[in-house]
Amino acid sequence: MIKAGIIGATGYAGGELVRLLLGHKDVEIKWFGSRSYIDKKYYEVYQNMFQIVDAVCMDDNMEELADQVDVIFTATPQGLCASLIREEILKKVKIIDLSADFRIKDVKVYEKWYGIEHKAPQYIDEAVYGLCEINREDIKKARIVANPGCYTTCSILTLYPLVKEGLIDTDTIIIDAKSGTSGAGRGAKVNNLFCEVNENMKAYGVASHRHTPEIEEQLGYAGNCEITLNFTPHLVPMNRGILATAYAKLLRKPDGSLPSYEEVRAAYDKYYKEEKFVRVLDKGVCPETKWVEGSNYVDVNFVIDERTGRVIAMGALDNLVKGAAGQAVQNMNLVFGLEESEGLKLVPMFP
Amino acid sequence: MIKAGIIGATGYAGGELVRLLLGHKDVEIKWFGSRSYIDKKYYEVYQNMFQIVDAVCMDDNMEELADQVDVIFTATPQGLCASLIREEILKKVKIIDLSADFRIKDVKVYEKWYGIEHKAPQYIDEAVYGLCEINREDIKKARIVANPGCYTTCSILTLYPLVKEGLIDTDTIIIDAKSGTSGAGRGAKVNNLFCEVNENMKAYGVASHRHTPEIEEQLGYAGNCEITLNFTPHLVPMNRGILATAYAKLLRKPDGSLPSYEEVRAAYDKYYKEEKFVRVLDKGVCPETKWVEGSNYVDVNFVIDERTGRVIAMGALDNLVKGAAGQAVQNMNLVFGLEESEGLKLVPMFP
Amino acid sequence: MIKAGIIGATGYAGGELVRLLLGHKDVEIKWFGSRSYIDKKYYEVYQNMFQIVDAVCMDDNMEELADQVDVIFTATPQGLCASLIREEILKKVKIIDLSADFRIKDVKVYEKWYGIEHKAPQYIDEAVYGLCEINREDIKKARIVANPGCYTTCSILTLYPLVKEGLIDTDTIIIDAKSGTSGAGRGAKVNNLFCEVNENMKAYGVASHRHTPEIEEQLGYAGNCEITLNFTPHLVPMNRGILATAYAKLLRKPDGSLPSYEEVRAAYDKYYKEEKFVRVLDKGVCPETKWVEGSNYVDVNFVIDERTGRVIAMGALDNLVKGAAGQAVQNMNLVFGLEESEGLKLVPMFP
Amino acid sequence: MIKAGIIGATGYAGGELVRLLLGHKDVEIKWFGSRSYIDKKYYEVYQNMFQIVDAVCMDDNMEELADQVDVIFTATPQGLCASLIREEILKKVKIIDLSADFRIKDVKVYEKWYGIEHKAPQYIDEAVYGLCEINREDIKKARIVANPGCYTTCSILTLYPLVKEGLIDTDTIIIDAKSGTSGAGRGAKVNNLFCEVNENMKAYGVASHRHTPEIEEQLGYAGNCEITLNFTPHLVPMNRGILATAYAKLLRKPDGSLPSYEEVRAAYDKYYKEEKFVRVLDKGVCPETKWVEGSNYVDVNFVIDERTGRVIAMGALDNLVKGAAGQAVQNMNLVFGLEESEGLKLVPMFP
Repeated sequence: MIKAGIIGATGYAGGELVRLLLGHKDVEIKWFGSRSYIDKKYYEVYQNMFQIVDAVCMDDNMEELADQVDVIFTATPQGLCASLIREEILKKVKIIDLSADFRIKDVKVYEKWYGIEHKAPQYIDEAVYGLCEINREDIKKARIVANPGCYTTCSILTLYPLVKEGLIDTDTIIIDAKSGTSGAGRGAKVNNLFCEVNENMKAYGVASHRHTPEIEEQLGYAGNCEITLNFTPHLVPMNRGILATAYAKLLRKPDGSLPSYEEVRAAYDKYYKEEKFVRVLDKGVCPETKWVEGSNYVDVNFVIDERTGRVIAMGALDNLVKGAAGQAVQNMNLVFGLEESEGLKLVPMFP
Repeated sequence: MIKAGIIGATGYAGGELVRLLLGHKDVEIKWFGSRSYIDKKYYEVYQNMFQIVDAVCMDDNMEELADQVDVIFTATPQGLCASLIREEILKKVKIIDLSADFRIKDVKVYEKWYGIEHKAPQYIDEAVYGLCEINREDIKKARIVANPGCYTTCSILTLYPLVKEGLIDTDTIIIDAKSGTSGAGRGAKVNNLFCEVNENMKAYGVASHRHTPEIEEQLGYAGNCEITLNFTPHLVPMNRGILATAYAKLLRKPDGSLPSYEEVRAAYDKYYKEEKFVRVLDKGVCPETKWVEGSNYVDVNFVIDERTGRVIAMGALDNLVKGAAGQAVQNMNLVFGLEESEGLKLVPMFP
Repeated sequence: MIKAGIIGATGYAGGELVRLLLGHKDVEIKWFGSRSYIDKKYYEVYQNMFQIVDAVCMDDNMEELADQVDVIFTATPQGLCASLIREEILKKVKIIDLSADFRIKDVKVYEKWYGIEHKAPQYIDEAVYGLCEINREDIKKARIVANPGCYTTCSILTLYPLVKEGLIDTDTIIIDAKSGTSGAGRGAKVNNLFCEVNENMKAYGVASHRHTPEIEEQLGYAGNCEITLNFTPHLVPMNRGILATAYAKLLRKPDGSLPSYEEVRAAYDKYYKEEKFVRVLDKGVCPETKWVEGSNYVDVNFVIDERTGRVIAMGALDNLVKGAAGQAVQNMNLVFGLEESEGLKLVPMFP
Repeated sequence: MIKAGIIGATGYAGGELVRLLLGHKDVEIKWFGSRSYIDKKYYEVYQNMFQIVDAVCMDDNMEELADQVDVIFTATPQGLCASLIREEILKKVKIIDLSADFRIKDVKVYEKWYGIEHKAPQYIDEAVYGLCEINREDIKKARIVANPGCYTTCSILTLYPLVKEGLIDTDTIIIDAKSGTSGAGRGAKVNNLFCEVNENMKAYGVASHRHTPEIEEQLGYAGNCEITLNFTPHLVPMNRGILATAYAKLLRKPDGSLPSYEEVRAAYDKYYKEEKFVRVLDKGVCPETKWVEGSNYVDVNFVIDERTGRVIAMGALDNLVKGAAGQAVQNMNLVFGLEESEGLKLVPMFP
């Protein structure tokens, strides 16, 4: 039985991690960390856990925690994980960090976009970017897994085959993403009140959202080139779900023609056909967030626009599952040599 | 492996049954019946099932179905199950009927409230009302289980201890219930369009809703008396969830005092303390539908109003799970001698 | 031109007051009071007012304000208005108080339910309860109008004809009310976050909500008796709208029969036929909150249940309009001798 | 008093037209046309109109109607207006067509994208495209006004200054638009049921939506060039509101630098500074659909991304007001020489 500790267990991602790990046959949660609710019963924060979880919330003491568990999930704001991590801890436990601390390889880029100093830059190189479908083998050997962001997971998986196979002009990539509100977290802010979000829609963080450099870096590895793109997130009145709509110019073939549906489809199938959690939909079917809700699936598809020569690629996932806690569990499974889908065989819930 | 067939697999309750049975280790779905979508891939109706279910939709042929499966779930409008059932079928399979056909023992009451003739009254007596927590032992021996309605499950479990223990004046019961919109089904009706339901709220079926006689009959058995009550359903802009708020005069003790919190609580504990799926919340905590979403739980609680001498009892459940498909699986587990919670260990999803 | 000042202009009710007064031909808003946003442009708080309102937010200085305006609206938490009011102010301006400070005639009841000391009990007697349809003549002469609560307006108008005409047993009244979330205000609380409210439903303040004594007092005046009743509010995932479902035993006639539909209807027509803002719906039509959204209407109707001898009365209004700002404007119109519906000829918005 | 007739008065746009015209001091609605509800009271279809509209629904008889009114609004599916229009009618009344019949100048383009034969191509040239801010003078003289689509109004007004002033490379335009569900109409379709739309998000009509050629044609006039672009609509779980997020490469200046914020802003101000209904927001403020709900405003703004050299322009409107009925009234005001904003001084409703 793998013993797990969660730092930040009372945020939405932390709560989802608890839900998923409770259904994982090889894991036992030993530590429900939540600085805001120390000594409070966990179920008093999340009454859905009444009679399911009896533990009380604990402090964020990573050293003590490292003595008690095999894996620590940090579902906290950026900065915390980097400030707590050290060699003695890493010798004892694996770290799966749901924050951004170890996602970006260039510490200057991190510090610029996040506006804080990185407290443990010495571990950035070692940390593995935990996008399981892309970095599976490296994750298996990692001590620190940098669990990807919700928007980034969706954006990267939507575009990866196109970039990797050189089908698009990477200077023309535009990602227009829409998210449910759980991605904004559980902080008590006027902007996230029901009446402010409901029956409303807006873009935010235009040309400045922190997931931008993460997407650029990872797609850059895929394309073996530097990529600069536009990423625009939007807030939508729903709890869960991210939909990314991505645009790029298709590279024409020597004869001047566009790649065919079959050729683009072959690229998607090459990378995803064997993947349990990435579903390439049938031709003409657009991904809907509801079709993946509560599950670890990412649904992707694309349309070729002959008129403009662009491909429109779309991806949908549940931001709290494949976009956060689900992928964290998938990473944990890889790190500990378990079946990759253990605890994640969740059928999407509709309606 | 138990072989299951579903008639009405493309309604919302049918779809939920598919979701639950896919996670049940002892069951295999052999027949996805849906007269409206015959020969269509099931996943084309519910894309959440893409790459999970590969079957095509079949007709409502109960006789042929009876040769292929061990249990038939009928998730269809009232009348259909009664019109198809016959002795040769019952000799081969168990029937779990999610419609109202076998819920009401008095055929005249059924015919009056539903406005149709009952086609198989000879089986009404034999059928067991499938409210698992109340009729567990009888269900185990049943050939036909009449799976309770969503409102009724919620209403009865909310009031049962009060009636059974004689704590309230049964002439004063009022149930004000509120439901999400999946209870209205998947039919294409203007009334159920997004723009008609969203940002809206209304009562409907006032003093005439068909779940009324079902609640009255079952509570009457508990109280060993005839009960006539008010039941008012309301439509609320959410997908899932029923909340019942019930009112009744507490019977005063010989000394004229009201029963205490502890005395009423003892009644709830008497019937629910050992029940996995009924959670009596801590004092002062009101049930919320979100805390049970996606799960088979019913959360109940009560408040005593000293000023008016009434008890306000509240119950919340997911209308598609404990209110339909989840309870159907729970019934199936009882009928086949499996662990009662098999396939139902679902942690409620929040948010 | 009547000059108006608003204390608490950046709450939801205050914002609605601004919207309505901007459309009122005889009123000019001179003071946008908001202690939280002093010196900030009003439109920066509510961008819907961009290029419509250019003023900055001011402090809550009632004395200075009294020199500048003819009427002050206080849309603030209870306690504030009572703490600021004094004779010099009342000599200069009319006060329309949207808080609870002057609604309850018995100061002990106020202090018990609200848990605070009343700072200006000497004005309670003078203040007129501003339910326009009931107290029209008194309001015209008032210096202080106590604008009714949202739940209370809905509950009282729903039941008034039944109580006034002696049609029901007032010991049996139960009001089950449901509200959209704007009634909870604009405070930054976790409980009111989008993800906590959306797809969720709950009762709250069971047997203890502060609108209870207000309803009891006013219905008591109508029935000329002391009334104790149950009032249960619920939170529903929508922005605007209150629906009250009220239950009571009909008093039987000497011959033992229940009053007929026509007899009950006559009672409703007696009080509301000439009322612009109270619409008694056609037989069989249940009020829906959407049909009154954005307007000052209250829609009411009733159903007689012959089986139980109860009447189920229903009422729907927009909590920010007839439940707050709209009624405040209606009161202002009465106080200043304007046409009662001036500024309130709003057609409900659907969808 | 201008007499108005509405063909298609019971669709959502028709209903909104009724709401707006009821508040217009110079107009009287004489004909509520609705083939589906002939002889039914209009308020029985839309109960918000109870005690406000007493008329019954009439047939779609344009000839008879032309004798009774001064202006006919056709809020019907495409094809109907073109099939009914003829010279005798145009001699008597003005036509404001909310369908697509007269929006596209090239009949072949219309027939290709709409898949139907145009029944009155002889009037296409004469019809004026009713985007008031752009074609004001021509509209004043028109007999037939082709009222623009909801997506197109939003998209064109968002991009117009950029194209007109030659600030962007028109080959790089991408419009990612999101709409509430009222845009899908009031037809009883499974896809538009509450439970299918709520908590869900999807793109649709990718690379094939009918508003594409309309946007291209109008922006082409502005840029004096042929424009081909990508337009992707999305369905979002809300009633009202469209948000368009548009992307394009800024043209660099001779010195290689990008246009500055001030330069781009000057372009927006040039066209919109004097426009009542187009609000260019303050720097850094992103449009939100809620800030324009229920009103005739379009809020626009832009961000320059120095990293990619693109401008991200955003626009928000209420699809039923400025995107349909409000613009139709604005057009009517122009045609009849009334104040352009008469009947449209609606303050956006928040929340």
